Amino acid sequence: MSEQDNKNGHLVIIGGHEDRTREMAILKRFVELSGGAGANIVVITAASTVADEMWSIYDEAFGSLGVDKRSHLEVTSRQDANSEDFVRLVDDATGIFMTGGDQKRLLALLGGSALDSAMHAALKLRGATIGGTSAGASAMSGHMLATGRVELHPEKGSVNLGAGLGFLHRVVIDQHFSERQRLSRLLSVVAQNPYLQGIGIDEDTALVVDIGSGIEVLGQGAVTIVDGRTMITNVADIKDRDTPELIDVRLHLLPAGSSYRLPAGDAEPGRGLPLPLLDFLENVTKRNPLS
Amino acid sequence: MSEQDNKNGHLVIIGGHEDRTREMAILKRFVELSGGAGANIVVITAASTVADEMWSIYDEAFGSLGVDKRSHLEVTSRQDANSEDFVRLVDDATGIFMTGGDQKRLLALLGGSALDSAMHAALKLRGATIGGTSAGASAMSGHMLATGRVELHPEKGSVNLGAGLGFLHRVVIDQHFSERQRLSRLLSVVAQNPYLQGIGIDEDTALVVDIGSGIEVLGQGAVTIVDGRTMITNVADIKDRDTPELIDVRLHLLPAGSSYRLPAGDAEPGRGLPLPLLDFLENVTKRNPLS
Repeated sequence: MSEQDNKNGHLVIIGGHEDRTREMAILKRFVELSGGAGANIVVITAASTVADEMWSIYDEAFGSLGVDKRSHLEVTSRQDANSEDFVRLVDDATGIFMTGGDQKRLLALLGGSALDSAMHAALKLRGATIGGTSAGASAMSGHMLATGRVELHPEKGSVNLGAGLGFLHRVVIDQHFSERQRLSRLLSVVAQNPYLQGIGIDEDTALVVDIGSGIEVLGQGAVTIVDGRTMITNVADIKDRDTPELIDVRLHLLPAGSSYRLPAGDAEPGRGLPLPLLDFLENVTKRNPLS
Repeated sequence: MSEQDNKNGHLVIIGGHEDRTREMAILKRFVELSGGAGANIVVITAASTVADEMWSIYDEAFGSLGVDKRSHLEVTSRQDANSEDFVRLVDDATGIFMTGGDQKRLLALLGGSALDSAMHAALKLRGATIGGTSAGASAMSGHMLATGRVELHPEKGSVNLGAGLGFLHRVVIDQHFSERQRLSRLLSVVAQNPYLQGIGIDEDTALVVDIGSGIEVLGQGAVTIVDGRTMITNVADIKDRDTPELIDVRLHLLPAGSSYRLPAGDAEPGRGLPLPLLDFLENVTKRNPLS
């Protein structure tokens, strides 16, 4: 599906370590959704302190996927993130890709800037595709996992959230998920923030969100969803660093190949859509206001 | 609570690596439930190929907890497991403890033997306490985790069950749970066997079952319960080694200190008992027939 077919925009949320040199199934899909060979792709390396290295990796990958129009958006200050030249690059882009690094650095540089607004406009008004890997994936939601220890068990107070870019809401995203055994960390977030559904994305795996329409899981691993909204817990009453009791957390595992569409119009959810996924699907595909 | 207070018997199901030399909170509880200083404890080392070493560890531990009557039940053959002398030792015991090792070895030696029957009679007719750690914990349920790879994700066909001792039913027990990152393995079991609720017990942690009455979690870690009974999955349709899609698995985390009682008589479940735990509680505390 090309950008021309869909004005709703797409998010390609990647759990890190995606293949950048061989089959490149995920980056290939990002390029297709951005318009194929005619795509105009900008790469935002602001999360990384080795921006040039990051740019050369993705410059080569997108080049080998047939994309001629590729730009490095090297944001090293908030002045950069508010500069007209950089905003114009985003305004012309059909695909915007955020590399890995540190999501706190990314948000400190971009959050609330003119570039941030231009990215929202690109996604919501022009149907552009926004991709992000690792830190670039975590940065996509409104509430962002900022710092957090990985312990054997969920712990009260072990994880801190920050403000992310807000392309999707009521979720929190973690990456390198199975590889770095981060379920207990995601449970820590959800235990204290049951408003948020936790999304854990494995390496070389992407959750592709077709805004207003559906989701798809691509790549080598799986996407784990942790839903604590009906959970019963003592987390409000225990001390910091204690492990909360958690009863009735809902867990979904969507391996690569899973894909779900929202029911069309006022129709009942289709036979294929499991009802426990409906809320999640509505959350992540929601058309959010421009700002 | 001593054996004298309760004729229903107890199970002390330990996730391995319990403290055997310092505070010994779990072994101390096992001794208390077996009658305290007056307990008569037999140690079954059949799971282990280093039975003498195992015996000397527990001989010392139970001795230092004030227990004078302690015996090593060294079963090295099915003849041993059917011998009158060994059965008499179990008939006289108030506490029966099964060490770690390999649960397949334990069941190959004990399963269906006179000793097996004597253990059921001890638990169900005399209110004895049966403890087991690691392999000795896995062996307690009717369906036993026999062999299984630990992969990053649940996989169809990666885990095989065997017949356990059957002190409790409709569950499957894994141990060293958080330490060896075994959630995906337990999900593999439950995905293919949703009849079973998965119980994952951490090291130096015990699930204490007061038959007919309630449960308690003791020690340093937590007990994880995985309930797939209302799950939606494609596991029946995928190939071996593929990762199933799992929607709406219920997960409970009970840290040390959690304890729940069954509602008394025909009363409604008490305020303290979360309804999603009721089935689990009924399953594991169920008074099962003698054989």
